[in-house]
Amino acid sequence: MTYCVGLLLNDGMVLLSDTRTNAGLDNISTYRKMFTFVEPGERVIVIMTAGSLSVSQTTIAQLREAIEDPEATPETSIMLAPTLLKVAEIVGDRLARVRAEIDQKLSVMQGASASMIVAGQRKGGTMRLFLIYPEGNFIEATEDTPFLQIGEHKYGKPILDRVVKPTTSLSDATKAVLLSMDSTLRSNLSVGMPLDLCVIERDACRISQSRRIEAGDPAFRAMSEAWSNALRDGFAKIVI
Amino acid sequence: MTYCVGLLLNDGMVLLSDTRTNAGLDNISTYRKMFTFVEPGERVIVIMTAGSLSVSQTTIAQLREAIEDPEATPETSIMLAPTLLKVAEIVGDRLARVRAEIDQKLSVMQGASASMIVAGQRKGGTMRLFLIYPEGNFIEATEDTPFLQIGEHKYGKPILDRVVKPTTSLSDATKAVLLSMDSTLRSNLSVGMPLDLCVIERDACRISQSRRIEAGDPAFRAMSEAWSNALRDGFAKIVI
Repeated sequence: MTYCVGLLLNDGMVLLSDTRTNAGLDNISTYRKMFTFVEPGERVIVIMTAGSLSVSQTTIAQLREAIEDPEATPETSIMLAPTLLKVAEIVGDRLARVRAEIDQKLSVMQGASASMIVAGQRKGGTMRLFLIYPEGNFIEATEDTPFLQIGEHKYGKPILDRVVKPTTSLSDATKAVLLSMDSTLRSNLSVGMPLDLCVIERDACRISQSRRIEAGDPAFRAMSEAWSNALRDGFAKIVI
Repeated sequence: MTYCVGLLLNDGMVLLSDTRTNAGLDNISTYRKMFTFVEPGERVIVIMTAGSLSVSQTTIAQLREAIEDPEATPETSIMLAPTLLKVAEIVGDRLARVRAEIDQKLSVMQGASASMIVAGQRKGGTMRLFLIYPEGNFIEATEDTPFLQIGEHKYGKPILDRVVKPTTSLSDATKAVLLSMDSTLRSNLSVGMPLDLCVIERDACRISQSRRIEAGDPAFRAMSEAWSNALRDGFAKIVI
């Protein structure tokens, strides 16, 4: 399983993913699920993936190939695409095609699929955050719904529902996604450390902060404990 | 969708269910999902249901018929069954049979299924809490896992994971299931008020407290707001 979350705020975007993949509970590995594509000051794109590793790895590899292709065009390369919407379309098309190919190979089994979050901004454009479904279609974050999640999203949603608004600061937003992940880690064993955190400031068109949080990270653990204590204190104070 | 939760504590059991059923988001109704079977001081059984209404209603109706049947035996009536384990077996068998019959009728569609929580105690026996799967097999709550949930269980699990232990008092446990439901109500529209709450004290073999909480219930709303504030305050105090 996987948990990835992206926030679209007035001040920028905050993205967080776990790294656990598993083929059965006895076959667990660490794989990066966050991929960045940056031309500093010009364009920044972050893609996070959930679902079948074979589908998402192939899709990311093909997206990279298309960027590096000497004959790359705005139709094929997400680094040349004229808009972020076009980027989402390219990713969606590629994802749907890879999925169809792999599905065909696996047709005797249950099939494979993946979903993705695409976040980015190009110089002169606005920040945009998309969720791309396995079929290649997608939805976009808005003022009303400033966050998108893929994978095991339910355990970590209540805290986001209560805290995240477009006006939330990047530091509060970082705290919110880490606490959202903390609740998910506690409730689903197949979501696991280390975590990849990425912050993109508005109009910077670069990765403002990128951090891998390892298992046992003292700051993360302290935050997790402080949150547990705050919940317990809050719980104790409520009268029914 | 549905959310039902049952806690097995040293002092007794706490059970909570919502009442919303829907066939599509434009066809929403209120149905009781909590059913009680009591012979005061002798035996108390509470069943909560999630899943297809046709399956769960028929199952409950057949369980009642079997109780009222003048030829009822310990093999057919949950009010005569010698142990709570036997009660769980009777409910599981009945559920699986109803499901199979309805599934056959619906075979052109996607099929129908339901799961149930069965809680109870008979005089001289221990309190027991079971989760019965659509196939009729079941699991039981233990010291290590003192709660069971059916339906839309993920949003409301983090608070239970943090708060509920066998030593939790019935009043704290009531607060915990209500807050767990509150998080679920906020995140999934298809779980809805009113709520049915039921508390069974250890060895009482009766329903100690039974309450329907209507939409707009002032105490529930106050608790919900106090919890929101506690979360916001706790969140604000955490330093990362």
